[in-house]
Amino acid sequence: MPQPLDVAFIAGSTGTWRIDGLNALKGDSLPTAARLEVFEGAEAAKVQDGSRRLRGVTSNTRYTKREEAVDLASKQADLGRTEATRAVLITIRKSAAWWDLAQDERRAIFEEQSRHISIGTEYLPQVARRLQHSRDLGEPFDFLNWFEFAPEHTDAFNEMVGRLRQTAEWRYVDREIDIRLSR
Amino acid sequence: MPQPLDVAFIAGSTGTWRIDGLNALKGDSLPTAARLEVFEGAEAAKVQDGSRRLRGVTSNTRYTKREEAVDLASKQADLGRTEATRAVLITIRKSAAWWDLAQDERRAIFEEQSRHISIGTEYLPQVARRLQHSRDLGEPFDFLNWFEFAPEHTDAFNEMVGRLRQTAEWRYVDREIDIRLSR
Repeated sequence: MPQPLDVAFIAGSTGTWRIDGLNALKGDSLPTAARLEVFEGAEAAKVQDGSRRLRGVTSNTRYTKREEAVDLASKQADLGRTEATRAVLITIRKSAAWWDLAQDERRAIFEEQSRHISIGTEYLPQVARRLQHSRDLGEPFDFLNWFEFAPEHTDAFNEMVGRLRQTAEWRYVDREIDIRLSR
Repeated sequence: MPQPLDVAFIAGSTGTWRIDGLNALKGDSLPTAARLEVFEGAEAAKVQDGSRRLRGVTSNTRYTKREEAVDLASKQADLGRTEATRAVLITIRKSAAWWDLAQDERRAIFEEQSRHISIGTEYLPQVARRLQHSRDLGEPFDFLNWFEFAPEHTDAFNEMVGRLRQTAEWRYVDREIDIRLSR
């Protein structure tokens, strides 16, 4: 695994991705815009703070066991595939009750109860993804979840997030915004 | 658990703590100085970047199980005790090999093999401590470990870190600086 990668998402009048919809599923919404750009590494670090900027960092896995990591690595696709002209950014904050849990309690809810890794794995390689952590950066969300897929896999993607949103883990989500994008 | 707390450690000519020694046990050293100040929260966020500034954030536990957390909480002391006129800042970076491990592999090395939590618990409440995470902030170290104790517990503290440095976990430490302080 490489060192943590800074990633910044900037909403504005320009950007690679067109914002097709922004849906605040829980908690306060965000200002919308016409387009979104994604900056990585040194470029992300140069981005100015502001209300239309979300920032996160890729990091080490927090719950994934070795056998799960091997399975994921054998199935997952990279970001940036030519055919993946749809993207979704799902911004998540979890409650204090979640963060108060010990590591073994969070793991048990995340996977043994909610099958988060297992459900996600079913949609590989069609849905490519990258998780950015934001909580320790003092950001408004704890996680910025980025997904890319071809238009014909939109239904599968919706099914996946629908299943995850019914899990025990999701009862700890206290703010969630689902941003649909295309290019 | 409160939200993550920003903490900044600033070496310079002023500060609450006198720097009595700085020992680079592994990897490159740091510039030393006469004194050290610790800033928290909004004050930490205002501190300018620079070569004499280390920054971290308290965060959720990463390896601790519920029964361990309950045991720690029942025994540990707060920072800032009047009698705790000795402090130690141990700055740690772990290797890529460590961060490449899956969660269950890191937990097994951390506690089942190295007894990191168990060893630390033996020295409670004499040695108070707080862990700051730095890796996801793009800092030179992954962890900033802060300890406070009364002078008569210095030998116990040295015994504790001596035991930890002989563990399997410590084979993944590739930079470590031990900074001794008094007030």
